Amino acid sequence: MASSKPRIGITMGDPCGVGPEVILRALARKPLRRSARFVVLGSSAILNDVARRLDLDASFLRTVRTFAIDSGGRVNVLSIAPLPRRLALKGGPTPEGGRASIEFVEIGIKLAMDSQIDALVTAPINKRAVSMAGLPWPDHTELLQSRTGSKQAVMLMKGGGLRVAMVTTHHALRDVPALITKERVLGVIRILNAALRDFLGFLQPRIAVCGLNPHAGEGGRFGKEEADAIVPAINAAELEGIRCFGPIPADVVFRHAHGKAARYDAVVAMYHDQGCIPVKLLAFESGVNVTLGLPIIRTSPDHGTAYDIVREGRADPRSMIAAIQMAIAMARRRKTKDE
Amino acid sequence: MASSKPRIGITMGDPCGVGPEVILRALARKPLRRSARFVVLGSSAILNDVARRLDLDASFLRTVRTFAIDSGGRVNVLSIAPLPRRLALKGGPTPEGGRASIEFVEIGIKLAMDSQIDALVTAPINKRAVSMAGLPWPDHTELLQSRTGSKQAVMLMKGGGLRVAMVTTHHALRDVPALITKERVLGVIRILNAALRDFLGFLQPRIAVCGLNPHAGEGGRFGKEEADAIVPAINAAELEGIRCFGPIPADVVFRHAHGKAARYDAVVAMYHDQGCIPVKLLAFESGVNVTLGLPIIRTSPDHGTAYDIVREGRADPRSMIAAIQMAIAMARRRKTKDE
Repeated sequence: MASSKPRIGITMGDPCGVGPEVILRALARKPLRRSARFVVLGSSAILNDVARRLDLDASFLRTVRTFAIDSGGRVNVLSIAPLPRRLALKGGPTPEGGRASIEFVEIGIKLAMDSQIDALVTAPINKRAVSMAGLPWPDHTELLQSRTGSKQAVMLMKGGGLRVAMVTTHHALRDVPALITKERVLGVIRILNAALRDFLGFLQPRIAVCGLNPHAGEGGRFGKEEADAIVPAINAAELEGIRCFGPIPADVVFRHAHGKAARYDAVVAMYHDQGCIPVKLLAFESGVNVTLGLPIIRTSPDHGTAYDIVREGRADPRSMIAAIQMAIAMARRRKTKDE
Repeated sequence: MASSKPRIGITMGDPCGVGPEVILRALARKPLRRSARFVVLGSSAILNDVARRLDLDASFLRTVRTFAIDSGGRVNVLSIAPLPRRLALKGGPTPEGGRASIEFVEIGIKLAMDSQIDALVTAPINKRAVSMAGLPWPDHTELLQSRTGSKQAVMLMKGGGLRVAMVTTHHALRDVPALITKERVLGVIRILNAALRDFLGFLQPRIAVCGLNPHAGEGGRFGKEEADAIVPAINAAELEGIRCFGPIPADVVFRHAHGKAARYDAVVAMYHDQGCIPVKLLAFESGVNVTLGLPIIRTSPDHGTAYDIVREGRADPRSMIAAIQMAIAMARRRKTKDE
């Protein structure tokens, strides 16, 4: 039944980057298109120009001026900003592109908060472009957190069979140890546990928590963050009935968190590279980013605007496809639960 | 010709750990035994007791009282410390075990420095046991560095097609950024480059250098160690004719450093988990540790004494086998070069 299919909003991202191309390549796949109902929040002019110049199929697109979701296997494009075609495939940051890319996300958040879409998938924005437009958002996460009034947003990376939530993300390594507090670690464990249960199909999720230091500190020999923050957070989570384990050395844990004999359903990593190294190694072209802790479902491909390859017509859509599939799966589970 | 086979010394490691078991299991393989000449520096009593209790073949062992290498496919055991059999499979730290395990290494270093063996393979020691014996060595590396009078010893991890040299190893993450200096990074690049050329068969090695911070600092947004130390080290190395590239984000570089289309022959990682996460993920049971920067060749399996599984007879010898094979390959290349 068409009406039971999840409604997925996809923001077009920076018009000058690979966002339009990977969206076109992803939605050109009929089985994917039929598994949900889609609206692209962006610009018809840009999408059609990119399709023409890179020789991609755009016949399934239909331009709409007010929000509407097509359920006949076509994809509506809600054309928002009147963007000049010259931005298409430009391959560099522009103030217009930066401003428009944020506007797409703002509208996507509103639609998701109003329950007009069930999940939001965001194509990449570029922080230089956004900054050229005079806007304060360094990345999607802060914008999403601010507009949805969420206390703690948590980045989850998915790929290669791994699910990894990050306690910290874009910070100098020097600043990371001070950010590892019991409260922050516990917050991430709680949000991850709820997401695994509510959106990812785990009845009693098993969560592994990384140490910060080599060998998880080896009993205090290499650092005290395990004893001061991570162990207390794990203990508190266990008292709440969460099944969590650790601190486990980061060079050991990922081996046990994927594959058929996995001991854990997800991992809490303390910092960016600790979590991203294993996911990108196992799933470089198909990693997905999920923002947890929000009242809405949001996923995104795990790559940037890739300005340097924008005119080559060889952007890999696998990560965008995986992000769309993840959004659909999460929306289905929440629907089932709400019914 | 038997006499052209490399002479490999293997220290038995802690008698109470899995060292004796993995040595017996590794050397039970005839092809491996025939590819070199071996002497085990340890205890015949322990090795034979472990073999009897775990039902392993020890028929190829021959006890000798003074140093000699057998070239008839048998393995000489230079029985050094008079160790009580009760230490075999004990599965916990003891002062006798700690003292003996260091003595084996001391003798191995002497034999290698005197060119009586071509390479040294070390089975695991345990730092609690060594400390119970009142000895100051926290690990093999410091002992090796001290006894060989080497300025900078560099840990190289090999496995899963990756070769990763570490700028820092067993330090709290909090202390790592201050240790990332131009001199230290340049020293590791130089030592790695020389080892790749002299022992590992690369005529013009291509070396990738990781950033310390997420996205390699993203142009200074997340930390300044890239600009202050890593870039200057890379530039200086390039001036010396070394082909090195970076700083490259750590969550990207490993993908391009293994497999058939590898762009790099080895990677310089800034800290323990940055380098160990990818190697252990791709090669959990067969990782090898190599100490570079010494006048002697030294490899070791990438696991510890594993006291907890010592009586189960299921220790995996793959890492020890890989360490022996690596030592043989390195010794062969150096021999070829010296001739």
